[in-house]
Parts: sequence; C-alpha cells; structure tokens
Amino acid sequence: MRFTSETSSDGVFEQLFLLGDIPGVLWTPRGADGTRPLIVMGHGGGQNKKAPGIVDRARRFVAECGFAVVAVDAPSHGDQPEHEEFTRIATEYEARLDAGEGLAPLIAGFQALVVRQIVPEWQTVLNAVQKLSHVGIGPVGYWGVSLGCVIGVPLIAAESRVRAAVLGLGGAEVSAETAARITVPVEFLVQWDDERVPRTQSLALFDAFASKEKTLHANPGKHGEVPAFEIDSTLRFFARHLG
Amino acid sequence: MRFTSETSSDGVFEQLFLLGDIPGVLWTPRGADGTRPLIVMGHGGGQNKKAPGIVDRARRFVAECGFAVVAVDAPSHGDQPEHEEFTRIATEYEARLDAGEGLAPLIAGFQALVVRQIVPEWQTVLNAVQKLSHVGIGPVGYWGVSLGCVIGVPLIAAESRVRAAVLGLGGAEVSAETAARITVPVEFLVQWDDERVPRTQSLALFDAFASKEKTLHANPGKHGEVPAFEIDSTLRFFARHLG
Repeated sequence: MRFTSETSSDGVFEQLFLLGDIPGVLWTPRGADGTRPLIVMGHGGGQNKKAPGIVDRARRFVAECGFAVVAVDAPSHGDQPEHEEFTRIATEYEARLDAGEGLAPLIAGFQALVVRQIVPEWQTVLNAVQKLSHVGIGPVGYWGVSLGCVIGVPLIAAESRVRAAVLGLGGAEVSAETAARITVPVEFLVQWDDERVPRTQSLALFDAFASKEKTLHANPGKHGEVPAFEIDSTLRFFARHLG
Repeated sequence: MRFTSETSSDGVFEQLFLLGDIPGVLWTPRGADGTRPLIVMGHGGGQNKKAPGIVDRARRFVAECGFAVVAVDAPSHGDQPEHEEFTRIATEYEARLDAGEGLAPLIAGFQALVVRQIVPEWQTVLNAVQKLSHVGIGPVGYWGVSLGCVIGVPLIAAESRVRAAVLGLGGAEVSAETAARITVPVEFLVQWDDERVPRTQSLALFDAFASKEKTLHANPGKHGEVPAFEIDSTLRFFARHLG
C-alpha cells in the first residue's frame, strides 16, 4: 500500500493511495490512532472516489463520528484505467435506458464482472486498510447508491465484516437475488421520481433484503436529488450500528 | 379550560384538562414559561390520549426539545362519552376489515364526522392551549398514525398553524383527496407488512401529499410494530421544522 498524497483540513486527514494498481482514498480523524469503525463508500456511475457526494459524507463520518472512511475508484472511473468490458456494459446500459429498453440482457454479464473483479479488489483494500494502526479491525459499514449499490450488494453478501449498510437508487432487476443473502441492517434510499430506476423496482429491491432491520427512506425528486437531511440520518444509522 | 390534575416527573409537567366537555392532556417542561413549539398528537383507534405510545413520545418532545404537547381523546375513546355514530362506523370498519370487504361505503360518512366534529374540537383545544403563558403562539406540529392519521389529514388541511406533520399507517382510500391540500413537510410512516392498510394504499397516500418536502419511512412489521428508532427520527424532524 503506497500513499501518494497526504493532506489535512478541518480535523480530517486524507490519504490518497495505490494498492497494487487500485487507486483509493482514506479519510481518518487527524492525529488519530487505534481501532475505529470503517465505512467503505462506493461512488455512482460517472463519478469517482472523490466525487463531492462521497467527500462530503466521508468528512462528516470522520469529523462527527470518529470513523475511518475508504473509497476506491470503480473500473473505468477516476484514476482507474479504461476497462473495456465495464465500459461496453455501461455504454449499452445508458443506451438501453435512453431507449426505454429492458436491462435484462446486460445484467448477468455485469453481475459476473462485479463478483469476479470489483468485489475481490475492494476486499483486498479492506484487508490492507484494517492493517493500518489508525484504522484497525473494527466494525465495517458500507455506503453506496446507484452504481455504489450495484457493487455494494454483492460485496456485502460476500463480506461478513460489513455489519450495516446504506444503499439505494437501485432496482431488483439487477440486485434482488443477491440482496436476499443480506441480513445486516440496511437503510435504503429511494427517489420517488427516479428517472433511472422504476419505483416498483426500487420497492422490490427493498423487499428482497433478508435483513430483520431494514428501513426505506423515500423522498420526492429525481435520481440525483437525494435531500441533504438524509446525510444526518445516515450518520445516526451508522453511529447506532457501528459506534 | 379547567385543569383537573397536575403532576410532574423527570422534568415533565403533565396537566389533565377539560375544555367544555373535551378531555385532554398537556405536557410542558416543568417550570417553563414563554412561547414554545406545540405538538398536537392524535392517538390510534382503541387507544386514548394517554396511550403508552403517545405518552412516551410526548415526554421526549418535552424533555429533549422543550416543546409543549397536547393530546385529546377522540369520540368514544378515553374519557369521551360514547358517540353513537363514531362507534357504529368504527365497529363496521373492523367487521369489514376482518371480512376483507372494501371500506368505501364507510368513508364518506366517517370523513364528514371528522370534519364536522373532531377537527373543530381540536382547533378549539389548540386555541385554548396557545393562550396559556407556558405554551404561547409558537409553531405547531402534528403527530398521528392510524386513526391519528385519519383525523390529522383533514385537521392539517384546515389548520394553517400546523407547519410540519408526522403521519402514517393510513391509506389513500380514506385520506388522499384531502392530503392533496397539504403542503407542509410530512414524515410518513409505513409498516411494510401492515395487516390493516394495504401497501399500495399507503404508498398512494404518500404520493398524494402536495408537500414539496415529504419523506416516507417504511419498516418491516405489522401495523402496531413501528420500530423505536423512528421516534428519534420524529424528534429530529420536528426540531428541524419547528425548533
């Protein structure tokens, strides 16, 4: 694990790193040492590990809860190299969405790619980060919506270290089968007027989680318009389950 | 307004009162004076103004937010006398629910009763309570689920003093038309396995509110099984909008 940049502001220490070829970022409380809860964050499609929605949440997890937060670029995103198969699927996904066509022909291929490549990569990152003395082997949470939900569902299903997850802006068509293997507490975000994920698909994915405690938060607005007050709820959810 | 009992515990002052024939209860911070936000609470069917779910929430609104809280018995409930028409409708409602029959034949009559009698009664209580020096004319919130939602929707639609509301466990069949006149922020509770209100009816009622800010919280479980952590969310919702 090689740190390529270290900065600090407002009490939050930010370290960019490369783990082999995987580019990531780790946020921790400045000057912190010792074991703490760790949130793994998955960014949305077209974004990257330092998208504003990721950074804002990460800084609040660190500053208000004392957690560590790690985010990694998905293939073909941020500092990751172009990944031919990922890009092909993503491009066809957008084209089918625009044309109002079903996504079914793409799903098996995309799921296989996530399980074969992204989940193991992120698990490797989790292993490495938990070896650092200012992170340690504490409880792990996952936060990810949209693409971050598509990646998060199989990651959480495969990864017993994850104890609680905030997911959302995703549908049953892509993730329901794997979601049925998830039993940890889930807070699930739905945008009531989501132009990318049909409402029935969102509700069906919420339905699919096997978690005894799961809570759906639906708000008016489009895919990208999750209201700011949901961040407060996310903080309390993680504090309750990991703190 | 005649106070019939005054008690105090853990910093919360409780006054039972009669306003004419209307029996109610007012909770305020002990020793408080001056204007503060007021929450009007509507109890569920078969409960009363001092049901545990009402008292628990009321005490937390007072102790943690410094609010005043008032609750009134619905007709045929608590210390209210038997109300023939209300009881007849409620009895038939239960019978139809048990038999899996539609509620449509009951709805117009019940809505008329709520608008004709309950809403004006509760408005009279609101007027009287806001004249007290330890309540005053501050912002008003409404909390009510199940029967408390059925009463709350027309009350809020008629009452411009209400600035924010927590509602839920209610369906569009009873309340959608009036809900479309509500524009204040709403937090709406849905029980995902509600045996009394079909899920589609709950979602349709949420859909009907004209509020720009509305947020649906759905949790697994039956009608009476709203999880305790929703109380925390309710507190923050009211603190944000009334505090």
